[in-house]
Amino acid sequence: LRTVQGELELALSRLFGRRVETSCAGRTDAGVHALGQVVSTQDAPEGGDLTALRRALNRICAPSVAVTACNEALPGFHARFSARSRTYVYAVLEGELPDPFLARTTLHHQGVLDLDAMNEAAGHLVGSHDFASFGRAEPGADTVRNLFELRCHRAGRILRVRARANAFVQQMVRSLVGTLLEVGAAKRSPDDMPGILAARDRAAAGTVAAPQGLCLVSVEYDEGWSQPACLG
Amino acid sequence: LRTVQGELELALSRLFGRRVETSCAGRTDAGVHALGQVVSTQDAPEGGDLTALRRALNRICAPSVAVTACNEALPGFHARFSARSRTYVYAVLEGELPDPFLARTTLHHQGVLDLDAMNEAAGHLVGSHDFASFGRAEPGADTVRNLFELRCHRAGRILRVRARANAFVQQMVRSLVGTLLEVGAAKRSPDDMPGILAARDRAAAGTVAAPQGLCLVSVEYDEGWSQPACLG
Repeated sequence: LRTVQGELELALSRLFGRRVETSCAGRTDAGVHALGQVVSTQDAPEGGDLTALRRALNRICAPSVAVTACNEALPGFHARFSARSRTYVYAVLEGELPDPFLARTTLHHQGVLDLDAMNEAAGHLVGSHDFASFGRAEPGADTVRNLFELRCHRAGRILRVRARANAFVQQMVRSLVGTLLEVGAAKRSPDDMPGILAARDRAAAGTVAAPQGLCLVSVEYDEGWSQPACLG
Repeated sequence: LRTVQGELELALSRLFGRRVETSCAGRTDAGVHALGQVVSTQDAPEGGDLTALRRALNRICAPSVAVTACNEALPGFHARFSARSRTYVYAVLEGELPDPFLARTTLHHQGVLDLDAMNEAAGHLVGSHDFASFGRAEPGADTVRNLFELRCHRAGRILRVRARANAFVQQMVRSLVGTLLEVGAAKRSPDDMPGILAARDRAAAGTVAAPQGLCLVSVEYDEGWSQPACLG
């Protein structure tokens, strides 16, 4: 299976002449995109030219990968474990006509969704909850997460669901979106949300929305890490 | 080989219960896109519900195909032979960083192109010329075409080359763009253009630009055809 992380590790291994392992801030399932992924490694030689490294990575990696910045991190920084929150956006193209140019980055919904109902449902889901109905945890971990933000807005034919949490259990964003889409299509009521949370059962939530509409847009860190020396 | 035309003909054949052949206004090579393709057929039953037909086609066709309108044509209309001109746009992403979200619809050029030089070169190419240096004709046809418009403009990091002609010989737009890109990168001078035209030799022009940056944006017909009954 080709992955962005695998592609990066291969390129870094070639450039550094040693086996390189990396950590990614946010997992992205097959078909999911990322605009603001953050990747860290402890296997880089010290004192390299980071601008030259960025250019070399963009030459070596496939067109599906772009490295926008390379920076030296402070000691102890870890892309995944130092992250305070992740922000994902899910994009839905509404209306009868499909758009082939957006087919890889949006889900097409034939009708028009009820935005107010979706936002009312989203309001029930924001906060610290056990999200067992919306996804599986890794072995040994629990499914309690703090969902800081879940909001839907519309721009032209594109409806976007924005989700920010300290972390997400597996398939949680796509499962939240799938449930909100059912609310938007009047198949569920916003008032069903508390019951779905309480059920702690995957079968209680809506179907998992297709991967192609999902994008990891940013990863947030404490200010201490946010100096030029650390994150680009 | 899967093509948009093949996909459409298959869907129409299923819906009409008979073998359907179509004509497309503009040929698009593999990897080239179309926003405003026009397709005609003489194999449709009369008096069908055209809105229902459009909906059915969008349900049956792959997400890479969208049918934006279905209309009854006037007698004698032919998508290809009735067309007065075709307009193509070629998109180039300038600058160091690639953009994975644009990789399928733009050509990435690492540097910044000299827009003025490109437009100066384009000015030499506009008009009725023998474009044998820029592409092959179909067997038995000549290579004289009337290039009504060839202009470059820049919007943010995207440089677009707009080309409109009565018709184009095979690979002509990509060959014109490849030559203009060499002018933009100072590998050729705008003043070389008349000599390239006069040579009537493929080797005289620049390389053929990669297909993914090219898009057929519209096809123009005489006003007589442009009634609601004819074109959507």
